[in-house]
Amino acid sequence: MTRTLTLSFSCPDTTGIVAEVSTFIAQHKGWITEANQHSENELSQFFMRVEIKADSLDFPPEEFNVRFQPIAQKFKMDAKVSDSAKAKRVIILCSKQEHCLYDLLARYVAQDFAFVIPCVISNHENHRKIVEAHGLAFHYVPVTPENKNAAYRKMEEIFRKENADLIVLARYMQVLDDALCRNFAGKILNIHHSFLPSFAGAKPYHQAHGKGVKLIGATCHFVTPELDEGPIVEQDVIRVDHSESAEDMAHLGKDIEKIVLARGLRAVVEDRVLIAGTKTVVFR
Amino acid sequence: MTRTLTLSFSCPDTTGIVAEVSTFIAQHKGWITEANQHSENELSQFFMRVEIKADSLDFPPEEFNVRFQPIAQKFKMDAKVSDSAKAKRVIILCSKQEHCLYDLLARYVAQDFAFVIPCVISNHENHRKIVEAHGLAFHYVPVTPENKNAAYRKMEEIFRKENADLIVLARYMQVLDDALCRNFAGKILNIHHSFLPSFAGAKPYHQAHGKGVKLIGATCHFVTPELDEGPIVEQDVIRVDHSESAEDMAHLGKDIEKIVLARGLRAVVEDRVLIAGTKTVVFR
Amino acid sequence: MTRTLTLSFSCPDTTGIVAEVSTFIAQHKGWITEANQHSENELSQFFMRVEIKADSLDFPPEEFNVRFQPIAQKFKMDAKVSDSAKAKRVIILCSKQEHCLYDLLARYVAQDFAFVIPCVISNHENHRKIVEAHGLAFHYVPVTPENKNAAYRKMEEIFRKENADLIVLARYMQVLDDALCRNFAGKILNIHHSFLPSFAGAKPYHQAHGKGVKLIGATCHFVTPELDEGPIVEQDVIRVDHSESAEDMAHLGKDIEKIVLARGLRAVVEDRVLIAGTKTVVFR
Amino acid sequence: MTRTLTLSFSCPDTTGIVAEVSTFIAQHKGWITEANQHSENELSQFFMRVEIKADSLDFPPEEFNVRFQPIAQKFKMDAKVSDSAKAKRVIILCSKQEHCLYDLLARYVAQDFAFVIPCVISNHENHRKIVEAHGLAFHYVPVTPENKNAAYRKMEEIFRKENADLIVLARYMQVLDDALCRNFAGKILNIHHSFLPSFAGAKPYHQAHGKGVKLIGATCHFVTPELDEGPIVEQDVIRVDHSESAEDMAHLGKDIEKIVLARGLRAVVEDRVLIAGTKTVVFR
Repeated sequence: MTRTLTLSFSCPDTTGIVAEVSTFIAQHKGWITEANQHSENELSQFFMRVEIKADSLDFPPEEFNVRFQPIAQKFKMDAKVSDSAKAKRVIILCSKQEHCLYDLLARYVAQDFAFVIPCVISNHENHRKIVEAHGLAFHYVPVTPENKNAAYRKMEEIFRKENADLIVLARYMQVLDDALCRNFAGKILNIHHSFLPSFAGAKPYHQAHGKGVKLIGATCHFVTPELDEGPIVEQDVIRVDHSESAEDMAHLGKDIEKIVLARGLRAVVEDRVLIAGTKTVVFR
Repeated sequence: MTRTLTLSFSCPDTTGIVAEVSTFIAQHKGWITEANQHSENELSQFFMRVEIKADSLDFPPEEFNVRFQPIAQKFKMDAKVSDSAKAKRVIILCSKQEHCLYDLLARYVAQDFAFVIPCVISNHENHRKIVEAHGLAFHYVPVTPENKNAAYRKMEEIFRKENADLIVLARYMQVLDDALCRNFAGKILNIHHSFLPSFAGAKPYHQAHGKGVKLIGATCHFVTPELDEGPIVEQDVIRVDHSESAEDMAHLGKDIEKIVLARGLRAVVEDRVLIAGTKTVVFR
Repeated sequence: MTRTLTLSFSCPDTTGIVAEVSTFIAQHKGWITEANQHSENELSQFFMRVEIKADSLDFPPEEFNVRFQPIAQKFKMDAKVSDSAKAKRVIILCSKQEHCLYDLLARYVAQDFAFVIPCVISNHENHRKIVEAHGLAFHYVPVTPENKNAAYRKMEEIFRKENADLIVLARYMQVLDDALCRNFAGKILNIHHSFLPSFAGAKPYHQAHGKGVKLIGATCHFVTPELDEGPIVEQDVIRVDHSESAEDMAHLGKDIEKIVLARGLRAVVEDRVLIAGTKTVVFR
Repeated sequence: MTRTLTLSFSCPDTTGIVAEVSTFIAQHKGWITEANQHSENELSQFFMRVEIKADSLDFPPEEFNVRFQPIAQKFKMDAKVSDSAKAKRVIILCSKQEHCLYDLLARYVAQDFAFVIPCVISNHENHRKIVEAHGLAFHYVPVTPENKNAAYRKMEEIFRKENADLIVLARYMQVLDDALCRNFAGKILNIHHSFLPSFAGAKPYHQAHGKGVKLIGATCHFVTPELDEGPIVEQDVIRVDHSESAEDMAHLGKDIEKIVLARGLRAVVEDRVLIAGTKTVVFR
């Protein structure tokens, strides 16, 4: 694997941004392997992502951020530089269901994309063995109506201690509190088992079954204090028909839940997802 | 094309229905080419569809309905027999947009499935030429806030005069009144340009764009007095991303609108769709 | 879970089969929960699958097979009765890659469909820990050019000892020999990482990349002595574009490989798949 | 609609291309609305497409090509500039089948994307009326084994006289000769009714049916002298099962044929498709 730097930013839209950014990179011999840009008309915002071979630059990769500052400031960019040499740290939260957890563990083992799992946190004990068989730490943090606040503060402490870049709710069946949502804004990904905005809230497969829809969906979105309302990162659907009960749908739906969550996570880990107000820009 | 009879029915669920129906057919030498059944647990209703080669029977196909009555009555069936020798009569209603109309005309010309078009009705004149080029009658029935009732009564008259089996709203941009919806219950098919129940009502593509969904959809459903709430027959989606404006979505969405409408229409024309309360059973 | 009997059969096509089968079931008070049939014109073969609530019958479920024999013989059926009380025994064969194995383990843990795993066999040691963490036996059977025959005979012995109903090649990277293919005909399922018949044989993703296709696929099929030529059970595809290298395709393709294999396996486990010459009938 | 210029090019890959191109545009106040680039490693070729608001430039849009020449020559680009004020001229060739023709006519009427149809050419008379109802010229050019050469020379003459930018084979059932393929290389688009490279040549649906595949496809590709071997532009598939005959597949397949052809055509018309050896780069 070649070491790469990924520059991603958004800023007020104007002419000359690409020219300045690409000229800066070219002047320093940077080899661009991938580049994407998008102008969001309604927000008058410009979004860009560039991937550069780290060793093509005529300065140490660690200096990129500092050297890029004059351009970032000139265009009032909200900019970020990621170094492939530092894999993203992704904490997984799960409950009793296994499909998303197993799917993420398999991707971690294969390093399908570059991430490490500092630990897995669950409000149930049932997945301890499988997690520990991978040499990963497992934290059992039960959540009850009474201990909710203490439990979330405990989790927050783990997030900080482990320097988490991202937290993934892999069918985690508790609603995070406002403090967690705010303190880790843009860093918590959830998978909802419906094609949002349809069937937000509880028991979406039962809602879908009751309505008689012919497709069921899953939605990966950032978590915000408003339940199931955060910016959507990825969605997909599968076909169902009259013969499927709500329980059948819940079984079938697992396949898109795990795939949609993994695709969303990969995009975020690779800095392909930029938040644009209540929506997202996702560069392929 | 072999001449076929299609028996379709629903009735209270119990054991022995299939046995009795298939024995009746077998005793009369009927050759079954296709059969489907479904037990709807919540409604305790049974649904069945059987296709029989008409000339395999040891009595004239026209007698099927009468001879089947004892069984239909025994099981309190809501039963229907269709004869492929009598093609379904489908009236198309359209407005200015052309994609669904052209799509249906192409299917009619090719006889992709067995239907005739007694006439096309529109509140605009722009498609007269193309419709008449197919030798089909075109009725211009303008609908304004003032003449609404008169216009709908005129259309109702045409529906009756033409002995319509089905009315298809091929992106017809007027909301039918309650009388039409009730008088032709189960006979009017609409295509809505969203993945219902998301984005019912006006400007669904703008709603979808505003929400930042990653897939847009189309829904074919029966028309009931409650706008966009009738039983869903068919749905599909296509992928969009941040680069698509609401107008782009409206263009892209046409492709699923016309395909979903055509699939829904075909299923209804072939008696594959049985209404089950607020939902449908659709036999493939 | 209700206990069910599943009757599936194929036989020469004629009239009256459904009548006789359904009358037999009705006479014994059998409650049919699902039924499918298909007439294959080219082979003049009839295929049927019926699911019956076991305790609705007026005789012990164990007697079904014997009592059904007169009908089976009359129509020269190749018939099979499965009892949900006896879960199918599925042996998994894998190599170094983990995605299909983890996916099947997750389904086993959740019992998404009814199967047990008597053991996992691999020509590599790397998955021992995860398999054993589930309390499952793991057999390391290395396969080299020299020991091939001995290795396959060893595996055959395990298949027999464990009374395997099915063997699943979960991205198992060795070609089984003719003896195994013949002795377990109709019992070995493979996942091939291309949309067969395109790109059979080695390195299908490289073949796909070389050809510049815009979709890549996966195919679940029964194993026969002719490599990648057995009856196809299930297929699916995902979209790729010019930006994906052959290696990227290999990563992306894992998602459909595991899903397609699992869907195929489920259908076979539930007796929904009947072999029709070189093809399959798959009842939904 | 804003008037836009679209610059698209390929050239040997090196650093600094984007910098130079974007600096040139920025220096002339050009407002970039869309930009895409791709480095093809195997060919060491770089591909780029940029869309610019025509009236944002500080020189007349007509001068773009000349002013850009120094950069084009420096990087040895194969470059092209399209002006949205000059709609592409697309000649449609069809035979008896109607689905692709009707689909393209509907898109032309709606101007879903910017193209004009100088004329329709067919080896059958059956679509004359519908074509002429749109005010479009219809040329009947019968093709028989005896007159083939004369027929193709006649068509070639029409292509030249009409200044065709593109020729679309909308299920045109004759194989063009080598001269046509060569003289209009990169300008003729075909729709093949299979998921190439599977089932090239005649009767692909029968081949698909014989093989028992679970998905059927369609492929839009450039025409080259080697039948069904030209660079692939777009593909898609739909699901089929054992119940579909080859004839059913041929009916169902029409829906993807027309959609895939239209998507491919749109991409080419919008200069999103660049040929890369035997493959294509298709910018979304």
